[in-house]
Amino acid sequence: MYDLIIIGSGPAGLSAAVYGKRAGLDLLVIEEKPMSGGQVLNTSEVDNYLGLPGIGGFDMGMKFREHADAAGALFRTASVTEIQDDGAVKTVRTGDGGSYEARALILATGAEHRMLGVPGEEKFRGRGVSYCATCDGAFFRGKKVAVVGGGDVAVEDAVYLSRMCEKVFLIHRRDSLRAAKGLQDKLAACENAEILWNRTVQEICGDGLMEGVKLRDTATQAEEELAVDGVFIAVGMHPNTEAFRNVVPCDEQGYVIAGEDCAARASGIYAAGDIRTKQVRQIVTAVSDGACAVASAERYLTEKCCEK
Amino acid sequence: MYDLIIIGSGPAGLSAAVYGKRAGLDLLVIEEKPMSGGQVLNTSEVDNYLGLPGIGGFDMGMKFREHADAAGALFRTASVTEIQDDGAVKTVRTGDGGSYEARALILATGAEHRMLGVPGEEKFRGRGVSYCATCDGAFFRGKKVAVVGGGDVAVEDAVYLSRMCEKVFLIHRRDSLRAAKGLQDKLAACENAEILWNRTVQEICGDGLMEGVKLRDTATQAEEELAVDGVFIAVGMHPNTEAFRNVVPCDEQGYVIAGEDCAARASGIYAAGDIRTKQVRQIVTAVSDGACAVASAERYLTEKCCEK
Repeated sequence: MYDLIIIGSGPAGLSAAVYGKRAGLDLLVIEEKPMSGGQVLNTSEVDNYLGLPGIGGFDMGMKFREHADAAGALFRTASVTEIQDDGAVKTVRTGDGGSYEARALILATGAEHRMLGVPGEEKFRGRGVSYCATCDGAFFRGKKVAVVGGGDVAVEDAVYLSRMCEKVFLIHRRDSLRAAKGLQDKLAACENAEILWNRTVQEICGDGLMEGVKLRDTATQAEEELAVDGVFIAVGMHPNTEAFRNVVPCDEQGYVIAGEDCAARASGIYAAGDIRTKQVRQIVTAVSDGACAVASAERYLTEKCCEK
Repeated sequence: MYDLIIIGSGPAGLSAAVYGKRAGLDLLVIEEKPMSGGQVLNTSEVDNYLGLPGIGGFDMGMKFREHADAAGALFRTASVTEIQDDGAVKTVRTGDGGSYEARALILATGAEHRMLGVPGEEKFRGRGVSYCATCDGAFFRGKKVAVVGGGDVAVEDAVYLSRMCEKVFLIHRRDSLRAAKGLQDKLAACENAEILWNRTVQEICGDGLMEGVKLRDTATQAEEELAVDGVFIAVGMHPNTEAFRNVVPCDEQGYVIAGEDCAARASGIYAAGDIRTKQVRQIVTAVSDGACAVASAERYLTEKCCEK
């Protein structure tokens, strides 16, 4: 039986592994893919994690994993299908028939940005196609960009980008936005922002570089090409919590309900990174969660026994 | 008038500078000392900031500052004596007679660990003397250490260290602990931990390396030398909030009352890093706060106007 099992090996899980090993915990990290790093691996460049300016996402994932290895963390590659909470013992079951026990769990399986599912989206991901304005907006300073979506995040992204980009188009498939009225007013006040109503994105176009998006008018079915240097897709996120929802309470979008201390509403279970309810989903906030989740878990474990 | 003034240039302030510049904000960082990095500069080695394993504190401070410079942040060296909140305009006054205006402020002046004020403490700081068990405990694996203090943090530190150290002495100047009863019970259950009652530390001893602490019995005045490889001083922290207390509500210990969103209880003013009420004071939680404070500030500024 482990002191702690960490499920997921993105920034939150790897930071938890470093803090956990340094706290003297006997721990296991279970990762779904054979490569650690999570979403970071799909990012071409990261420029906002203090101390590692302008680093490639792949390099960052490698560095993060190396740090956890240096701390002595043990890794298993398997897909977690179920967790079971019997109080003092938590059981983690995996798709390959494995079963692991621990006294505490940290859930750090992250969340995924919903994709549009159109041609060119995968090809230009990280090279024109972004899912995070805060992360990547600064790379498009003085350029023309489009934001796709109609909710709060899409409108916030458009307002954010309007401060650094020459021009921002908000592309929405309907004739009204779902976003809060206050946000819509702010967007309306941005002189370099324009809403393109009743348009769906058919394709992300370009040869070597991304050159624009192909739009279809939902009323007339007319197609047009909009020349932009980048497109920010803000059509929602999907937290990877399916395997946990029967054990830890989640909000209506599926995020594990947990505050800054990362404590889920089940004793001895913690949620770190994009998986939990929070305002700012960034690499550094996930890494910070890893530290906070271990501090909470460590306090919980100490309550049970401290002789080791 | 700036969009944002950041007061302090430790990990929280520098991260806020990076996020703020990337968000297109016109900002100024005011730092008290001519060198950025804050407490990190006094740390010999940092091994828990994901991606930068085993880095020297000085190098880390330099890397952090270089990142903020690369992002284009503007710095001034001055001691902030007062802030004034007139709603849409915040004024920052400095000891050299300077006066700066901004629409939003991020307070990131950190907190200081209280020192014992005994001979040898400064000399062995970062080379045997530590003020943070979570940060430095792992460097003392299998060694003998002492913790000085009698409150919750001191007892938590002793329990934490008992998991990795051969022996832990808790040195307390009285015959009873202030720490919560539950924590005291946990400490009592640690077989390798021992409380030395009614002892004050007179000196931290050693030649090249730290070799032990000189103790005095408060009842008999007898002196003895205790051989330990490290000493963790847990006699409290002091948040650097004197200049702000008339403007932002602080708790009884002086920390700015603010949650994960870093919003102080004064509109347009944010507190990031060790300065705010929080559970886990680590470099990465401060860096994370820098990101969260800018996200909050950015939302606040957008509400005022978005044409830029």
